[in-house]
Amino acid sequence: MASHGFWLMGAENASGNGSQSPNTPRAWCQAAAQKFSGGIGSKLCALLNVGEAEKTAQAPVKPEDGSTSESCGCNKPCNCSKDTVCFSDLYSTDLLPALNGDAKTMNFLQEVVDIMLAYIAESFDRSTKVIDFHYPNELLQRNNWELSDDPETLDEILISCRATLKYAIKTAHPRYFNQLSTGLDMVGLAADWLTSTANTNMFTYEVAPVFVLLEYVTLKKMREIIGWQDGRGDGIFSPGGAISNMYAMLLARYKMFPEVKDKGMSSVPRLVAFTSEHSHFSIKKGAAALGIGTESVICIKADERGKMIPSDLERRVIEAKQKGFVPFFVSATAGTTVYGAFDPLIAIADICKKHDIWMHVDGAWGGSLLMSRKHRWKLNGVERANSMTWNPHKMIASYVRHYKSAVQSEGGLMQGCNQMQACYLFQQDKHYDLSYDTGDKALQCGRHVDIFKLWLMWRAKGTIGFEAQIDKCLELSEYLYNKIKDREGYEMVFDGKPQHTNVCFWYLPPGVRYLEDKVEKMKRLHKVAPVIKARMMEYGTTMVSYQPQGDKVNFFRMVISNPAATFADIDFLLEEIERLGQDL
Amino acid sequence: MASHGFWLMGAENASGNGSQSPNTPRAWCQAAAQKFSGGIGSKLCALLNVGEAEKTAQAPVKPEDGSTSESCGCNKPCNCSKDTVCFSDLYSTDLLPALNGDAKTMNFLQEVVDIMLAYIAESFDRSTKVIDFHYPNELLQRNNWELSDDPETLDEILISCRATLKYAIKTAHPRYFNQLSTGLDMVGLAADWLTSTANTNMFTYEVAPVFVLLEYVTLKKMREIIGWQDGRGDGIFSPGGAISNMYAMLLARYKMFPEVKDKGMSSVPRLVAFTSEHSHFSIKKGAAALGIGTESVICIKADERGKMIPSDLERRVIEAKQKGFVPFFVSATAGTTVYGAFDPLIAIADICKKHDIWMHVDGAWGGSLLMSRKHRWKLNGVERANSMTWNPHKMIASYVRHYKSAVQSEGGLMQGCNQMQACYLFQQDKHYDLSYDTGDKALQCGRHVDIFKLWLMWRAKGTIGFEAQIDKCLELSEYLYNKIKDREGYEMVFDGKPQHTNVCFWYLPPGVRYLEDKVEKMKRLHKVAPVIKARMMEYGTTMVSYQPQGDKVNFFRMVISNPAATFADIDFLLEEIERLGQDL
Repeated sequence: MASHGFWLMGAENASGNGSQSPNTPRAWCQAAAQKFSGGIGSKLCALLNVGEAEKTAQAPVKPEDGSTSESCGCNKPCNCSKDTVCFSDLYSTDLLPALNGDAKTMNFLQEVVDIMLAYIAESFDRSTKVIDFHYPNELLQRNNWELSDDPETLDEILISCRATLKYAIKTAHPRYFNQLSTGLDMVGLAADWLTSTANTNMFTYEVAPVFVLLEYVTLKKMREIIGWQDGRGDGIFSPGGAISNMYAMLLARYKMFPEVKDKGMSSVPRLVAFTSEHSHFSIKKGAAALGIGTESVICIKADERGKMIPSDLERRVIEAKQKGFVPFFVSATAGTTVYGAFDPLIAIADICKKHDIWMHVDGAWGGSLLMSRKHRWKLNGVERANSMTWNPHKMIASYVRHYKSAVQSEGGLMQGCNQMQACYLFQQDKHYDLSYDTGDKALQCGRHVDIFKLWLMWRAKGTIGFEAQIDKCLELSEYLYNKIKDREGYEMVFDGKPQHTNVCFWYLPPGVRYLEDKVEKMKRLHKVAPVIKARMMEYGTTMVSYQPQGDKVNFFRMVISNPAATFADIDFLLEEIERLGQDL
Repeated sequence: MASHGFWLMGAENASGNGSQSPNTPRAWCQAAAQKFSGGIGSKLCALLNVGEAEKTAQAPVKPEDGSTSESCGCNKPCNCSKDTVCFSDLYSTDLLPALNGDAKTMNFLQEVVDIMLAYIAESFDRSTKVIDFHYPNELLQRNNWELSDDPETLDEILISCRATLKYAIKTAHPRYFNQLSTGLDMVGLAADWLTSTANTNMFTYEVAPVFVLLEYVTLKKMREIIGWQDGRGDGIFSPGGAISNMYAMLLARYKMFPEVKDKGMSSVPRLVAFTSEHSHFSIKKGAAALGIGTESVICIKADERGKMIPSDLERRVIEAKQKGFVPFFVSATAGTTVYGAFDPLIAIADICKKHDIWMHVDGAWGGSLLMSRKHRWKLNGVERANSMTWNPHKMIASYVRHYKSAVQSEGGLMQGCNQMQACYLFQQDKHYDLSYDTGDKALQCGRHVDIFKLWLMWRAKGTIGFEAQIDKCLELSEYLYNKIKDREGYEMVFDGKPQHTNVCFWYLPPGVRYLEDKVEKMKRLHKVAPVIKARMMEYGTTMVSYQPQGDKVNFFRMVISNPAATFADIDFLLEEIERLGQDL
């Protein structure tokens, strides 16, 4: 693949409006290029060219470094240098499986790879923006995103690829703290590319032999870590924690009333489920979908740290029974979304055992702490659960995308609960061991291959590598906590060291800090976080989440799961909050 | 990136056991390399090295072409040539975000890309095997797939990548006909890689600005094609057709009885749904999950071509009402899984209108025919449906993976039906137009970015490109139909030209063909397809599906959605069936 030299198309424009980055993209590119040898540097300079597609199409920009790269000589204005394939003459129909499409295909895919490699290197560079933010209407106008009857050239396709990455949020950026899962793992990314290339589906062993085996190996290993004897039980990767929680509720209902599968909810008494008021909204969403109804999800009180109060759970269970309802499901949370709280699993397990209720642990966020010898005590009692949701991507896999989530449960129920035995997919007369055809356990028919990423990262890091990553994130959050707990202008939402990486706090700008009218103060404070967040996005320097909770006005919720984050990034976040909020 | 020359590690073993490929991998590799210029050829020779990891680790194989590439000089035996990074000394912790990890990262990712490019080129080569099949226990032993506490080197990670692709099924292979969706589109693949790299989630506009806009643009365009006025309505991409059908059922129930969301199924009368006996199993699966129960899904008779009989539908609707049940949902199928039949949508729409029932069209398989001016009449009446499932990947996108499926419906219901308004995700005081925060419409919390692939392919091909692809697949199936309808030894499962690309037929080997005892003949015939299929997989030459249907014994179901398939591949399939089945 020929290099592009330093040919920066429209780089002036690529910095976007209102850029506050220390370096312009061109400067970034030049600096980056110097770091590398062996042709990598020049690849990195396939900098994200954007929006200016039309401009470029009319007049290709000349190389700026005096290199000899020139337009490829085809009749159309284009983005090619002479020694590469001229993509402005090519269409997707010229690629494989087209006759003699091999070389064109390899060149096209390599070009896309170069765009991605440049984006990756840029993402980890603190001098670049986390996001080049534009309002929806503005973004709609900055590029042609419409679909039409006629095909576009591969040159135009490459321009779309660059534009898409230019306006994307850099979830790998060391200062991106906005979601529970941040960061981009290089082995995970490689595995994901490979999964795309393998391009199959988890239907059956027949169409995904390796991936089906890897799912088996990985789920079993996860069950061993949960603490279920010999890794016994059943499990599946689902499209996300919400769906995993729904699976658990389905299994609990099916175990107690198997007839519900055929006869529906009208054949059973009124069922009730229990979860803490701090639990994830997917528990109610699941109840709504499954025909149980949100009113049958009873919210148990949480203490000031966000943990479920077991005595309130037992009281409400008894109360429900007295009303003639049937308690069938308790969802304890290991790592709540906002506070990062861990419900007391042992006490909850005792209550579930006493009243014969299915105990589920929603460990979507906190489950990964099981891999840390230092922190796994927070989930003590999980081994007594009937089912558990655990999203490895949220913490150990540090990988936002693919909301892959493992739901694990007691053995043997999943098949019975969900199977429909469609003979066109699950033929019973195949020549291999059919216990590997896991498709009929799932609610889905086709199921995305989520396993390879997790499996390959696990191989690359080992369990101890995951542990080190978890411990580091918790160390960073403790650092943040220690830094702000007594700092002027800050107030913690709850006292004490964070149990997970969630650190919840208010920043009180000077203009709010000394207000004496408490109602006015709260009213003003409620608006602080949204304004600071909006400014962060406009400057693109960092991103952190905020929300109200109960009667508490908007506060920042810092979460750390990005392995790229350092102590200095935590310092930067605080400086930025103060810089952007001082006038409020 | 330095090239690997022709250094083939353990190529003798890479051909696997029982290979029937005309060429060995080494021969394939050498032939492939000659096709290319510009360094691509040498990349293609990073041939899939497999299973022989241990052997390689002990004694690196020398280059076979006399090139000067040698072991990299590190202390460990490895897979590196001198001028590349020595991966056997490196771990994932050496990659970004590690200090000075840039160059190592780029080299590692490029190495993975080279492995993938080789796999892609090989996949389209008819002389390679569709699958290198091994029984589960055998496959478990051919490589070390276990997860351990300690990390592995990047060299070992690359070996795992090669092994995974070696034993994967080549869904892009022109002779792979096993599933409804086959083939690998190069622009779609590039888009998928880029989606992985962008690594975000469809929660909100905030974290996926471009992708949220592209989803909006694409869903609206699809609604226009369905024929809903001005593209009005609502839609979402879900993890697959089964989940899309479940969404439709949820919406229908919510529209008729909004109280079910809060109060559950016990607050409403007994609901019943209707679908044809040939419909997809996900309709019953959805009913089981939603608390409606499979017995409340009434199966309507289909004619001999697999189409729902409208008079039977109306009869059963009236019967259900007489029993005091409430008909709330009819799922018509546009393209059944086995026969590829299209239910008569106009007649069904009339019945739904008359009885005030939600009409859903499950066009997971057949929906894409809407893009063909020649074939879209088969879906006439779809514009009268209240909702529709349409999996673009099944036909136009020719892309097995990511069971992305669009469910579209009347406007405004999705939000109401599924929203829970979690304030920690959907803050109402953000600074942009919140109508772009689509997350609360979904059952999922996080939602995978499925849109970019479809959008980029649509840009690259244009609607007319999709149309050409559809028309070609249908032409191929008609070719197959014409070829076998009167051919000796073949029998069609139903008469007449295929409506979709499904061609269902029996092959009767000579030993079965002339049997006079009909019971014995059927018994023997039932076993023919499974044996031929098993042999196909063992030889790895082609793959096609089979199943029984009702009282019909196992028959082949040929489906064509692979743009790489040609008339010659159809001829090959028949020759192969006859070759492998002649002794039965």
